[in-house]
Amino acid sequence: MAETYFDRLRAAARARDSVLCVGLDPEPERIPGGAAGAARFCLDVIRRTSDYAAAYKPNSAFWEQYGPDGWKALLEVRQAAPPDIPFLFDGKRADVAHTSAAYARAAFEALGMDAMTVHAYHGADSLAEFTAHVDRGVYVVCRTSNPGAADLQHLDAGGRPLYLQVAALALRVNAAGNVGLVAGTTAPGEVAELRAASPLPFLLPGIGVQGGDLEASLRAAWNGDPAACLVSASRSVLYAADPGAEARALRDRMRSVLAAA
Amino acid sequence: MAETYFDRLRAAARARDSVLCVGLDPEPERIPGGAAGAARFCLDVIRRTSDYAAAYKPNSAFWEQYGPDGWKALLEVRQAAPPDIPFLFDGKRADVAHTSAAYARAAFEALGMDAMTVHAYHGADSLAEFTAHVDRGVYVVCRTSNPGAADLQHLDAGGRPLYLQVAALALRVNAAGNVGLVAGTTAPGEVAELRAASPLPFLLPGIGVQGGDLEASLRAAWNGDPAACLVSASRSVLYAADPGAEARALRDRMRSVLAAA
Repeated sequence: MAETYFDRLRAAARARDSVLCVGLDPEPERIPGGAAGAARFCLDVIRRTSDYAAAYKPNSAFWEQYGPDGWKALLEVRQAAPPDIPFLFDGKRADVAHTSAAYARAAFEALGMDAMTVHAYHGADSLAEFTAHVDRGVYVVCRTSNPGAADLQHLDAGGRPLYLQVAALALRVNAAGNVGLVAGTTAPGEVAELRAASPLPFLLPGIGVQGGDLEASLRAAWNGDPAACLVSASRSVLYAADPGAEARALRDRMRSVLAAA
Repeated sequence: MAETYFDRLRAAARARDSVLCVGLDPEPERIPGGAAGAARFCLDVIRRTSDYAAAYKPNSAFWEQYGPDGWKALLEVRQAAPPDIPFLFDGKRADVAHTSAAYARAAFEALGMDAMTVHAYHGADSLAEFTAHVDRGVYVVCRTSNPGAADLQHLDAGGRPLYLQVAALALRVNAAGNVGLVAGTTAPGEVAELRAASPLPFLLPGIGVQGGDLEASLRAAWNGDPAACLVSASRSVLYAADPGAEARALRDRMRSVLAAA
C-alpha cells in the first residue's frame, strides 16, 4: 500500500484512467432489506463499477439513518471492497481539537477509511487532529454544491470570499501534504478561482442529480494530476438501470475532457 | 411530552432548578469494557446526576470511535435514560439539503434525540432540513470554545465578525422557534455580544477542562429563561470521583449566578 492517500488515489486513478469517484449513499425508500440490503446493494454497485471508479465515497448521513445497523453495514462494505480503491468517508466532521481527534479515530481506525471530509469552521487546531494521520487524506469543505452556499461562503471575509479564506486555511494545515478541498461542480467559476488560488487536490461533487457542470468544472480544476480532480457522482450511478455502464460513460466523458485539456 | 424541544428543556430545567447539561463523551482509554462498558459507565453517570441535569449531551465522536458497537451503545443509553430529560446529539452535522435530511432522520428518528448541533456553512437550505423537525431542537455552531475559533469565526464578514453572520442566519431559519446557538464559555465577551444580537437560546460549552468562564458566560447569556442558557460540562463531571456531587456543585454554582443576575 502506497504511503500516502493521494499516492494511493493516483495509482487507482491511473490504473483505470479515471477520475470518477462513486458515492455510496443508500436510501431506505429505494433499497429493500434495511441496512443489510443497503450493504448488499452497494457491494453489487462496487462490483459493477470497480473497473471505472478511482475511489468510493460513502456519505455518513445515509448510513447513519439506519441507526447502529447502518454503521455495521458500512464497515462490512468497506472491508469487502477491493483494497486498491481508496474509500473516502464523507462525514463533514468538525469539533474542538480533543473531539476532532476522536472523529479521526472513528473514520480512519474504526471504519478503516483512506480519507474523510471535514469542516474548517473550528480552525487550525481542529484540522490538525485530522491531518496528523499523515497516511490518510483530509478534504476541507470549501465551496459547496447547494444553492445555500452563497449565504455564508460568498460573504466578503477580510477582503475575499469566505471560501477563499477556507482554502487558505486548508493550505496552512497541509504540512504533511494530505489535504484537499471540496468544491462543487455547480459553481465552475468558483472552481477556477480556487484552482488559481490553491495547489491542493480537489474533490468535485454535484454532477448528476444536483446539476453540476462536469466539463467546465473538470477543465477548471485540472492541473495534470488525476489525484487532484476527483469528480464524484452518487445517485446518478447508484440508481442507474446499469451502474457499470453509467460509471463507464461518466469515466469516458471525463477522459475526453482531460484529453482535450 | 411537551410539544417543542425548548418546552421540554424548560420543564426539565425548572424541575431541577438547573441549567446544567452533562456531556456524555466516553473514552476507551479511561473506561474499560469497550462500547458496552461505555454504555454502562454513562448510564451510571446519568443515574447519579439525573437530579441535577437539565439535559444530556452525547458527543457523536466519542461513540463513533468504538465503531458500529458505539452507535448501538449510544442508542441503548438513550433508551434507558429518564424520558423527561432531553437528549442533545452533539454531532455538528451539515451537508447539502438532501443529505442533511438524512442526518436529521439519523439523529431524531434512528437515535431518538430531542435536539442536535449543526454547522451553518452550507446555508439556509441545509439548515431548513433540520429545523423542519419542529418538535426537535437545532443548535447552530456559532462561536466555538477552542483557540482555533479565531481563524475563521472572527474574520470581518460583510462588516461584522463571521460568528455574528452565523447568528443572523440561525435567526432567519427560526420560523418554528426551534433554533438555538452554540457559544463557548471560553469567550464570555462574544457570548455577551451574541446575546445582544440574538434572542435565540444558547448552549454554552467549554467549562471545566477547556477552562471556560462559567460565571461570566452565564451572566452574559442570561435572559430570564432557563432553557436559553444551558451550560454544558463533559469530562469534569463524567470522570469526577463523584459525578453526582460534581454535577450538584456545578448546578449550585450556576444557581448562585442566576439568583444574583
